[in-house]
This record gives sequence, structure tokens and C-alpha cells, in this order.
Amino acid sequence: MHFADTLVARMRELGHPLCAGLDPHRDLLPPLFRRGSMAARDPETTAAVEEFLLAVLDRLEGRVAAVKPQIAFFEALGARGFAALERVAARARERNLAVVLDAKRGDIGSTADAYAHAYLEPGAACEVDALTLSPYLGLDSLRPFADRALRYGRGLFVLAHTSNPGAADYQERNLEKGGPLYTAVAESLVPLCEELVGPDTGWSSLGIVSGATYPEPAARLRELLPRALFLVPGYGAQGGSADDAVRSFVPGPAGREGGLVNSSRGLLFPGEAQTAGSAAEWERAIDGAIERTTGELAEAIAR
Amino acid sequence: MHFADTLVARMRELGHPLCAGLDPHRDLLPPLFRRGSMAARDPETTAAVEEFLLAVLDRLEGRVAAVKPQIAFFEALGARGFAALERVAARARERNLAVVLDAKRGDIGSTADAYAHAYLEPGAACEVDALTLSPYLGLDSLRPFADRALRYGRGLFVLAHTSNPGAADYQERNLEKGGPLYTAVAESLVPLCEELVGPDTGWSSLGIVSGATYPEPAARLRELLPRALFLVPGYGAQGGSADDAVRSFVPGPAGREGGLVNSSRGLLFPGEAQTAGSAAEWERAIDGAIERTTGELAEAIAR
Repeated sequence: MHFADTLVARMRELGHPLCAGLDPHRDLLPPLFRRGSMAARDPETTAAVEEFLLAVLDRLEGRVAAVKPQIAFFEALGARGFAALERVAARARERNLAVVLDAKRGDIGSTADAYAHAYLEPGAACEVDALTLSPYLGLDSLRPFADRALRYGRGLFVLAHTSNPGAADYQERNLEKGGPLYTAVAESLVPLCEELVGPDTGWSSLGIVSGATYPEPAARLRELLPRALFLVPGYGAQGGSADDAVRSFVPGPAGREGGLVNSSRGLLFPGEAQTAGSAAEWERAIDGAIERTTGELAEAIAR
Repeated sequence: MHFADTLVARMRELGHPLCAGLDPHRDLLPPLFRRGSMAARDPETTAAVEEFLLAVLDRLEGRVAAVKPQIAFFEALGARGFAALERVAARARERNLAVVLDAKRGDIGSTADAYAHAYLEPGAACEVDALTLSPYLGLDSLRPFADRALRYGRGLFVLAHTSNPGAADYQERNLEKGGPLYTAVAESLVPLCEELVGPDTGWSSLGIVSGATYPEPAARLRELLPRALFLVPGYGAQGGSADDAVRSFVPGPAGREGGLVNSSRGLLFPGEAQTAGSAAEWERAIDGAIERTTGELAEAIAR
């Protein structure tokens, strides 16, 4: 098993690069699923969040290649939230949905090793297919993750250029030698990226995060990392268009390819779903949101 | 309550800046505490780790101002580990030990908000006094944490210059305008740091991480952030001396002050403790390690 090969094959089959972001803001949970106080420490809250996410997975199965749980929303529910994440991740993997855990971890060697053990080893309590990483601590902080990626066929997405306005604060600062910091991060990842290239597709399991809200940086990053899969946040709710989101994509056998485009709120909390009065109505609303989004992205990769 | 004021007052009372790092590598647990398979998913493992840490807190009470649990080692134990962290953090706070959770979190606004809610709000499942943060996403990613720090008197330590060799990869890269990246991070933190200055001591609850293994960068960071508390990893096992560790400290009413110096392995797993045959022998070994370390740091701040 090779993360990038498997994922790319699945995306070609489905004909779009949508990744469903699982960001269970408890305040946004639709009335149909709400119960109890909805306070973070109320066990009913975590149960409601889990039930909601499992229902979402039922809608996503067979329609998207990957889901991206944002761990912060589970941590906000404490140990119970963490247990819910373990079950949601396991269910997604059973349903042939690759799980990209958005955790943006990064620490020195021995600590990074503990994180890599926590998420990337077979049999880990919260076993996932790929993990997002923050590069601030340098290349040695990425090594324990890269080792697991190689050994167990996992994927990694290192932050290069994020989707938020604060990306300008440090990521876009120009270095004395070379361009902006985000390009230096990308350049330094080339050897790791080569190490993790898949035999079938030529895509690497060492990917980067490149926000849809910054299409020019995305194009520049593609030049530096021609084999990296890009995890693209910022499409939809954050303002990036479908064309912006696939700016870094290149021609492939089934349309342009080269990454995962994430949508969270637009899929999980579309307006019609928030006012649904029955499970069937809610399901139709989510199905509609999935169809609209995958359709829009399928068109974008065909252009 | 103000994090920096309270912490500095306590460190002056105790006469040293030691912070006890709680990094429960399960492979290093002394034989006295080991039980079962010690595999990550075995519930006995988490029980053993928790029992060990609670015994360590008994030794630390009244002797150090702060403890720094490294969340990665708890995450490696899954949801059970997370529950153990909640109990360890609560116990530490009951014992008048400030809890600095080493999580190096950092994400875009709405996600950062979930993290801040998870750790910095009163009544959070895993309520702590301070949190470490990674700055790669920029200043907007720090704002939700700063808001809680202001509102609830919490502390923040933003990574500036870490203790590992990889610090050279990005943190030390020179910018076209201004010095290396870590100084640009520090400069950009000045307004937040001013916002969080304490009325009693003049120290700010917005601190930074500055490794003991890089004393010159520490001195430079002190010039840029005269009111920031420095959380100093890398002392002891990683090779930084006591004098290196307090390089950024400045004269105060009870010796030099200006931060917390962390020691993890040297305190939790000293050689004598690893071979202890009884609880009393283990306690003496840990007490000895605490005395040696606090003594060494007390001497360093007196020089």
C-alpha cells in the first residue's frame, strides 16, 4: 500500500479531487442532531457530534476519496472527543475513505516520534492514512513521520502556504537568499518528496498544504514540487474558487490532478441541512451539497 | 489572576526557575511502575503512566513552580491517555503547580478557537495555565489564544528558536529585510506581549520558547522582547548547561529571572530511579534529582 498511489487511483475513478473536511463545530450542529446542553463537557454533546459525523460518512461513502477530520474540534470535547475521533476515523477507513488527520503537529525528534506512533502506525488507537505537519522546527522534526510514511505507506502534508491572511506574516517573508519562506520550505522538502514517490502514479506521499486563496503561490509551489500532492484548504467558505483550488493541478489520465481540495462547512452545514425537519430531508440536503461540490470540482479539473 | 505575575512570584519564593517536563515515554518507565505489556493500547499501560506521573507530582509539590506535560506522549496512548492527561493536569493545579501544556498548536482562526477553548477556558476538560504555540500560520492564528490569555489570565509560549538542530533549517534563515526568521517572529510579537504585561511584576503572559542549546539567539531574543518570559527547553539531556539556559535572564529581586527552564528526563528518569527496588528508594532518587537540578539552577541565577 502506498498512500499517494492509492489515493490518486481512487480520485481518478471518482473523477474529482474533493476531500470532505470533518470540522464538527458543535455550535453549527443542525437541530436534528442537537441534544442536551451542547456544552463541551456534556457527554451528550460528544455523542451528538459522533452521531452526526457517522451520518455524514454514510452520505460520503463511495462519493469522495478522502475525509479530513480537524482534530481541534475533537480535542475541544476532551478525552470523550478523542475517543469519538478514534471511532469516526476507524469507520471512515472501513468505508474506503482515506483519513487525512488535520493536526498540524510538529516537535523535536523524540516527541515527533510519539506523535508518529500515535497516528501513523498499524494498530494505533487513532490510526489514520495521512497527517498534516507544521514545519517550523525543521527537517529533523519531520523525519519520524517520514519513516512511518515509508514503512507503512502513509501520507504527510507539510504546511507550505496556508489559506489565511496571516500566511503573509512569516510564510511570505522574503529570504536574503532565495524567495519567500514558503518556497524555501518547499525546496527543502524535495529529497523527502522523492523518497516517497509511488511506483504506480509517480505522485509522492509527501505532500504540502497550499491554500486555494493564494493561487499564485500554489503555481510556484508546483514548479518546486512537481510530484507532491497538494492538500488545498480555503475552497468555498474561505473564498477560493474551484479554479483557484486546482491551480496547481497538472494533466493526468482522468483530467487534471495533483491533490485534494478540501471543503468543510459547505458540505457539513449547507443551509438546507440546517433547517431539515427529518433525517430524509437532511440526507437529501447533504447529498445535494456533495453533488454540487464534486460537480464543480469535476468541471474545474476538466478545463 | 495573571499567569506571569503569579508564576514569577512563585519562582522568586522558590529561588529557582525549574519547570518539570512531564514526558512519559512509556519505554522509560521504571520497573517499579511497569505492568502488563506496556503496549500503547493496553489500558494497563495508561494506568501505569498515570500512577507514575501522580507519584512524580507528589515529589514536585512545593518544590517547583511549574510542570510541562508534553501532550504527544498522552496522545500516543489514545483517548485513555488524553483522559489521564486531564487528571494529571487537574492534580498538578490542585497542588499549586502551574501547568504549561506543551502542545505546539497553531491553526487558522476558527480552528485555533477550538484549541483555545479546549485548554484555556475555565472548566475545560483539560484546563491548563499556559500553552505552547507554533507561529507558522501567522499572527491571526495566535489571536484566539491571546484573547483567552487576556480574559482568563492564561499564559502562552510561542516557538521562536527551538533547541533542536533543525532550528537552523527555517528559524535561522536570514530575511531580506531584518535578521533571521526567529527575530522576525519575536518582533511581530511585541504588541501582543505588551497587551499581556502583568501589573505586579512587569512580566508578560505572552512568552516565547528559546532553546538552552542556542544561547546567542536567546540573548538576541531578550533584546527584542524584554518583558517576555522564556520557556527554555534543551537544558540537561539535550546538552544545554545551566548557564546557557539562563542566558536570557535579567536581574530581579531574588536573583536573575525571566523564564522557566525545563528539565524532563533528568528529573523523571534519573539512573538511580530506574533501578529502584522500592517506592521509598524511587522517591529518594527523584528527590535527589530535583534537589540537584534546582540547586544547579539556583546557582546559575545567582551568578
